[in-house]
Order: sequence, then C-alpha cells, then structure tokens
Amino acid sequence: MAVLFFHTMRYKQTEPEHPNNDRFVLSKRLPFVDVATGSLGQGLGAACGMAYTGKYFDKASYRVFCLLGDGESSEGSVWEALAFASHYHLDNLVAVFDVNRLGQSGTTPLGHCTDAYQRRCEAFGWNTCLVDGHDVEALCRAFWQATQVQNKPTAVIAKTFKGRGIPNIEDAENWHGKPVPKERADAIVKLIQSQIQTHSILLPKAPVEDSPPVKITNIKMTSPPAYKVGDMMSTRKACGLALAKLGHAHERVIVLDGDTKNSTFSEIFKSEHPERFIECFIAEQNMVSVALGCAARGRTVAFANTFAAFLTRAFDQLRMGAISETNINLVGSHCGVSVGEDGPSQMALEDLAMFRSIPGCTVFYPSDAVSTEHAVRLAANIKGMCFIRTSRPETAVLYTPQENFAVGQAKVLCHSVEDKATVIGAGVTLHEALAAAGGLSQEGISIRVIDLFTVKPLDAATIISNARATGGRLLTVEDHYPEGGIGEAVCAAVAQEPDIRVRQLAVSHVPRSGKPSELLDMFGISARHIAEAVKCMLN
Amino acid sequence: MAVLFFHTMRYKQTEPEHPNNDRFVLSKRLPFVDVATGSLGQGLGAACGMAYTGKYFDKASYRVFCLLGDGESSEGSVWEALAFASHYHLDNLVAVFDVNRLGQSGTTPLGHCTDAYQRRCEAFGWNTCLVDGHDVEALCRAFWQATQVQNKPTAVIAKTFKGRGIPNIEDAENWHGKPVPKERADAIVKLIQSQIQTHSILLPKAPVEDSPPVKITNIKMTSPPAYKVGDMMSTRKACGLALAKLGHAHERVIVLDGDTKNSTFSEIFKSEHPERFIECFIAEQNMVSVALGCAARGRTVAFANTFAAFLTRAFDQLRMGAISETNINLVGSHCGVSVGEDGPSQMALEDLAMFRSIPGCTVFYPSDAVSTEHAVRLAANIKGMCFIRTSRPETAVLYTPQENFAVGQAKVLCHSVEDKATVIGAGVTLHEALAAAGGLSQEGISIRVIDLFTVKPLDAATIISNARATGGRLLTVEDHYPEGGIGEAVCAAVAQEPDIRVRQLAVSHVPRSGKPSELLDMFGISARHIAEAVKCMLN
Repeated sequence: MAVLFFHTMRYKQTEPEHPNNDRFVLSKRLPFVDVATGSLGQGLGAACGMAYTGKYFDKASYRVFCLLGDGESSEGSVWEALAFASHYHLDNLVAVFDVNRLGQSGTTPLGHCTDAYQRRCEAFGWNTCLVDGHDVEALCRAFWQATQVQNKPTAVIAKTFKGRGIPNIEDAENWHGKPVPKERADAIVKLIQSQIQTHSILLPKAPVEDSPPVKITNIKMTSPPAYKVGDMMSTRKACGLALAKLGHAHERVIVLDGDTKNSTFSEIFKSEHPERFIECFIAEQNMVSVALGCAARGRTVAFANTFAAFLTRAFDQLRMGAISETNINLVGSHCGVSVGEDGPSQMALEDLAMFRSIPGCTVFYPSDAVSTEHAVRLAANIKGMCFIRTSRPETAVLYTPQENFAVGQAKVLCHSVEDKATVIGAGVTLHEALAAAGGLSQEGISIRVIDLFTVKPLDAATIISNARATGGRLLTVEDHYPEGGIGEAVCAAVAQEPDIRVRQLAVSHVPRSGKPSELLDMFGISARHIAEAVKCMLN
Repeated sequence: MAVLFFHTMRYKQTEPEHPNNDRFVLSKRLPFVDVATGSLGQGLGAACGMAYTGKYFDKASYRVFCLLGDGESSEGSVWEALAFASHYHLDNLVAVFDVNRLGQSGTTPLGHCTDAYQRRCEAFGWNTCLVDGHDVEALCRAFWQATQVQNKPTAVIAKTFKGRGIPNIEDAENWHGKPVPKERADAIVKLIQSQIQTHSILLPKAPVEDSPPVKITNIKMTSPPAYKVGDMMSTRKACGLALAKLGHAHERVIVLDGDTKNSTFSEIFKSEHPERFIECFIAEQNMVSVALGCAARGRTVAFANTFAAFLTRAFDQLRMGAISETNINLVGSHCGVSVGEDGPSQMALEDLAMFRSIPGCTVFYPSDAVSTEHAVRLAANIKGMCFIRTSRPETAVLYTPQENFAVGQAKVLCHSVEDKATVIGAGVTLHEALAAAGGLSQEGISIRVIDLFTVKPLDAATIISNARATGGRLLTVEDHYPEGGIGEAVCAAVAQEPDIRVRQLAVSHVPRSGKPSELLDMFGISARHIAEAVKCMLN
C-alpha cells in the first residue's frame, strides 16, 4: 500500500474523491473510500465497475487498484470478477493478491503456493506478476509493468508474511483481528521506528485531468408515458422500454444484465444504447458489484436487471451496498407465482423481504406500464438504493399519462362512501383485487382498492385513513411469501391503531409449475380468494 | 446423459434413492433427484457434499456425477466448488461441462473455447478430459478414465451443439427455453426415431452394496445441559459446545465452517470430532451447497456455521434448499449491533427477515446457554431446514437444566397479575427487557417478559393471551432491522386482535462500530429505551 500510495498512484491528496484520481479498493477489509468492504470477496467486482467506467464511459486515464486477501480469494465472487475483467480487457485494472497464507481461523487452502494463484489468474485471462510483497522496488516494477500491458488486467501476486519483522508474531497463527498487548506494542513501535531511513515527505503524482464533467441529478423523461388506459403490457416489458427511454434522456444511464435481457426486456436498452449496456453473464454477485463500482463517485446512473429471484444471490453485496451508501438501482422481473410454467426456482417470493430489510432502500412495485415508467424515472433521481419489482404477465394499463406519482404515495383506485373493506394489492394482485371489486359490487358489496406503488416507504397515512373509513377492515394480497412482504409491512404500519384488523393473503408454501392464472388461484391470491376473504371479514 | 445412465453409472433402477447408488446432479436445470436446481451454479457444490460424504463418511464405492451448463460456469459458486473438490481430493466426483456456447440471451463469454475451460479446471486442481459431447464412445472412455485417477476429481469438458442434428435449430440462438412449433416437432421426432439403430433394453450396472446403514432420527443428548442459572456464557459459545456434545450423541452429526471456527466456537466440535468437521474456507455459498449434498438421502445431520451476516451470501442456495426440502441446519453467530467493535459489515441485521421468508424453515433465537443447547438438539431432530441465531456477548444463564423446550413454545419469564405491558425480546434484548423489568418494578410498574425461543413458528397463542392480560400493550425489542424481524412477525400474529397494540423497537438504520452496550443504547434497544417505551405506552 505504501508503494501504491507514494509511488504508483496519481491523485490529489486534498480531494480524495476527485473523478480524475486513480481508484483504490481495499477488498481485504476495514477502511473504505468508494465502497465498503469487510464482507470479503466483493472489492474486485466493484473495482471492475470503476475500471469499466474509466475505460468505456469516462474514457479517462485514471487507473484502478484493488488489494485482495488470499483468504477471500476462496469467494466465488472474486472469480466472477476475474472473468469479467479479462473479458472486457480492463487494462486499467490491477489486482494485488496479498498471499500471507493465514486466514482468520487457520491457514488458507493454498497456503504460500503463489504459483497456484498465478496459474488460476492466467487461466482467467490475466497478465500476472509474482513478487516478494515486502520488496518495495519489485512492487514499483510490477506496477509499472502493468501499465505496459494492453487489453489485459494485471494481477500482482505478492508473497507476504503477516506481521513481517515483528518477533514471535511474523507468520504466526492466532493474531488475526487481535490487538498486540500494550506492553509489547511499545517495543514493536520502537523497532519499526528504528528502521525508518528517511523523513522526506512523499507526495503523490497529480492525476491526468481528463474525466468529463458529469451531472446526474434532475433527470427528466423526454415525453410523458405513451400508453392508453386499458392497453395490455407486462410491467417487465414496460420497464425495459422505460430504461431505453431514460437512456435517451441522459447519457450516463447504464444498464447491466445477467444473461436474461430477452426476458427482462433490457435488450431494448441494449439495442438503442449498445455502448452503455454491460452484459455481466450469469454472475449476479458480480453484476451488483460492478454496478456499485460504476455508480461510485456519481459517474453513472446504474440499473442492474435480472429475475428478482436471482438477486437473492447478491444479498450480501446489497447489504454492503447500503453500508457504502450506494446509488445503484436494481430491477427484478418474474416475481411470484404469476411467472407460471417455469416453476419455483424462477419465482421471486422473498425479494420484498430482502429489499425491505435494506436500510434506506426504496422499493417500487408498479402495477401497470405508466407507473412502471414513473418508477424508473424516480429511481434514476433518488440518491440511494432502489429496487423495482416487475411481473411477467400482461396486465391492463390503469393510469393516464398525466397521472402523478411520488415515492411513498399510494393510489386509491375504487372509492365510495359505501365501501365495506379496503384491499391492498400490487402488481398482478392489484388487478385481481380490481376484478374482485367488480364481482363484489354485483353482489352489492362495495370495496376500496389501494395501489401502494412503493412498498417502502409505505404510505401509512393513506392506508390508515382508508381502513378507518371502511370499518377497520384491511385485506392485503401479494404474490410473495407472507413473511417480510406487503402484509407484514401493513400490519406493522397499523399496529398502534386499535380499530383496524388486517387479513393477509400470500403464497404460503413452495409453489409449483402451472399456468399463471391457475397458480394465482391455487395459492390463494386470485380475485375469487379476495372476494371470499372480504365476505369473511364482513361476517 | 444417455452414456452416464446406460453405460457408466451403477444404480438400482427401481430404487433411485438407494444409498449405494451412484449420484447424479443435473446442475443445468429442471428435473432433480436429491437437490433442486434451476437457479444456476449450485449443483456442483451439492455434488461435492455427496462425494465428500461418499469418500469420508460412508467410505463407500458410489460415485457422483454432475452435469453443468457452460453458461452457469460464470457463477462464482462453481469455482468455489471446483476449489473445494480438488482440495479434498474427491476422486469419486466427475463434473461434465456441456459447452454448447449458447446462454439464455446470447453466446457465453467463452463460446466454444473448450481449452479455456480446460485451463481453468486444471488450474483449480482437476484432472481434465476434452471430448466431443456427441461421441458416445469418447464419453464412455472419458468416464472410465476418471475412475483411474487417484486423489483428483475429473472434469469432462464436452463440446456440444444445442439441438444437434435438428435442421435450422442446431447451434442457433433464440431457442433457449422455447418449445418447437407443433408442426415442426412431428418431423423432428420422426427424424430422431429414424436414427435409432437398436431397440434392445439397456440396464444399468448394479451398485456395490457397501454403504453403512444410517438412522438419523430420535437423536438424544447424553446428558442434560450442564449450566447453572446465572452463569455467564455467550450463546455462540454455548452453541459450539452443544454441537460438540451432539457429536458424541450421534456419529453422523457433521459441522461445516467458513473460516470463522474460532469466533463461532465450532472449533470445539473440530477438536473433539476432527473427522466430521469440514472446513469450507471463505466460500459461504459452497458451504451451504456442500451441507445440502452431505444431508441428501439422510446420510448426515449437517450444521453449517458462520457469522449470520455472511449467510446472506447463500440466500439463493437457502431458497433453493427449501425447494429441495433439504434437512440442513444453519448456525449464524454475531447477530446485531451487539457484535460491537467489528462494525456493520459483520453485524447480521437482516438474517431473521431472510430465514423467516424461507418456507418451512424453523428459526431458533435462543437467549441463554441452556436454551441454545435445546435448540441444537431440536434442530438435529427436525426434518427440514433450521436456523439458529446466536449472539457474541456473554449473557446470564436463565433456565435450569430441567427446563423443557419445544418448537413454537415461548417462555413467560416475569409474570404477575399487576403486569401493565408485555415485552417480547430475544437474545441480548431479552436480557435488556429483564433489566428494564427490574428497573420499572422499582418505580412500581410491573411488566411481563416473553422469550420467544423460536421466531418461526411463532407462539401466537402465548403472545395474544399475555398481551390481553396486560392491557393489550405489546412491545417488541430486537437486535435486527425493523423489517421482516420479530416486530413484524408479532404485528402479523396479532393483526386480527382488535384490542392489542404493538410498538416496535429495532435497529432503524446502518449502525457503526462501538462497544456492544453503547451500541444497544445508541440504536434504541437497551433497557433504558424499553423502560421509556413501556411508560410511553402507559400514558
């Protein structure tokens, strides 16, 4: 790190976050600048995002350095990032493997076999360089050589000894994360100080000032949504179209895919903005980390897309993203049993629980094409993580192009003074609720239907006032498991209201394959079940 | 697959789940026997667990075959499994890479470069074999050669063409997951039938009958918990001790670690049962998949241990585990802000939301050493996934060795007819609630305190009856984010009770590093905050 910071890297000491500076990611843990680490194996993916941004979006001179521990290289996410970096020829990226052979609780699987690391990195398409990690001149040479290699990232594999030069601690187990006893620390500090040969102040080289200015606030769509009420359109497709439209509104909007672009419809963005589309292949952890890196320092507005079920693969990256205060947006399609024939492995039924648990994350669950487009626009402008949940089936457009949408503001769709209960749906279940309302009205039972639009923040005021106005009867219906979803969010929001009772309809066990409409009915969240639940509440 | 099933594999056709049979994992998706796949990149880790079990626990002749797609080899979890298999010399394991160059939405990153797959597998320590995947004899030879290699797993890298031999479909894009139109299908079926040269019935070879009989039901501890009320002991350490004790009770109990054994105290199990301890290094996805494989066909009772925060890395594996109806147990230590100095990256504050959302998962949250030991015993006997959440700080033993514990049965700890409110805590917050009860009683305010023991299933009857008996005032306090945790579970459980009001204390935003007691107070879940919240409810 001393070599990197005082010899190799170019940056402004007084402006650590300057866009022209070289980037440094300490994947091994603890301090952070652009992205938080500490859960291991995530730094290199973020570094890939920064290097991709530097090479292809900023087209700038800054370089990206990532220091990894040897222990953390057991994480598969590291190998996803290694494959990504060579595939995209990120020659502005240097990964330093600190091979000290000691993990937290024992030796690493490869110990000090630096040649094994070298073979693996070479097989993954990297230029590699083996060095003594304590040899300053060798490190200077290695980092210089990395600048001479075209089209390939460079891995510097540094053999090191933990606690180098400290008597009885060097290369010894059981010192991980443990402070040196006070009485020994003083002697060790003295020993280190005695080895200092110069007190001249080292200044970093200034960066090349060739990053373009970027402003990613106040992004507006070029036109209102172009849908008519009653048009049939899936929210997943509406989302793909909205992303492509957003791409025309701002040149720093980028989209990342995990080899599902023909199902999420992010392929529409790809065809209109190919230079801003990043195919991350089937590696969702790395897709999220790359998005984080691309979004660091406000260089891009990143939307990472795949099936919502597969975003569970990146829960740890999302959790850490919240700690980094990242600005990325996630789009998860194919939620719930309404996916249909593809079966339970492809159905997201726990994604709301996951994204709701992430501090500060805005969770959109639009129910038609118009609100989906607004969700995309709002997400682009929100500083912080956003998730947009979309559905596979085609559903009717509910809103006019003039309708206004805001975060935390629900819509009341059916409304009369006769209403006997309030039903809260989202996505396909909102359409089921509307169908139930139609059926019930023929039986003389009038109900109110609410579209949440954002599940987090939740519009508690609208929920409570409408529940009160409808006899305190509240019914939630969601294409999600009961835990951590809309039902529990609503229960918590009304938990201090003595006169409101909530019933929950949700998918209560592992589903199966089938036709979407059959599955909605089989798992108790169809119009028929909603109507029955309302009647049950009235008795 | 035809070569594997009708030439290479040994199994009883009529008893597909027989313990002596060779195992087959179709990681590429769709049908399954032992483990569900379909979310990609998970099969090889499960196959590793089966092969590890066959070689080291069953010491039997059966072999394990796993068929992977080339697209899914972008998943880092595949490389975690490859590293694991060579590290543990799993020469009874064969991975077949079906390199057809086509992903779902486009070509794979490596296309038909089978030599790149070979280099990568070799660098990861595997014996490799390149074959034409359509050449039956070459495949027979490759699978035979694999049996001749000692101490190394074998990767058969098969170059294939998707839709081989079908005019205008072979090697073409855009056929992934799409049915062939009916009018073309008939001609294709005829074409294939015309190529059949023999109608002789192929029978598999019988397996070698050398797997020992295993019975993993009705596991009992050899003695009651050896703690005295008031002893100080962290639940993480009590869990490590309980696992070691369980290991003495049953020889098929195994423990898996992700290089945190000195913090989770699973090192105690390792020292007493080294032959049943699997170090999975820092690769949580693979640790969970290996556990799944070890537990398949009831061969072991597997407990996978790491920090609860890092289990988020394996959410997709856990989600798929529920679809597989797996029997694995997870232990997550270091939950919540009570972790203290190590900071937010190490603190699990979303793990209850995650595990509660998994269908059928039993979620234990023991609050002292005695109940922790009971949680371990109960988890070992439950058929289905279990999660045990443990804490870092030392806390007092609350229960006598004679106390009975059952799933879904909460304990009422303080109880008088004067009680004005009911407080629900778990882990460290239960001790804070008891401290608050002590303080409040000196002010003349009597409260009831409930230890949930299991968060899922939740003891709704006990919660409701005690809330009713204490003026309908219910307070939850948890070392977890508000979403998806204890508070929301309780709100949902009482949502149809008109006279119960719930207040939630939880960690409302990303925490920081500090002393555990300082953090409990800073984030609003200490005894002081509980007492204030109770008073607030009374006013």
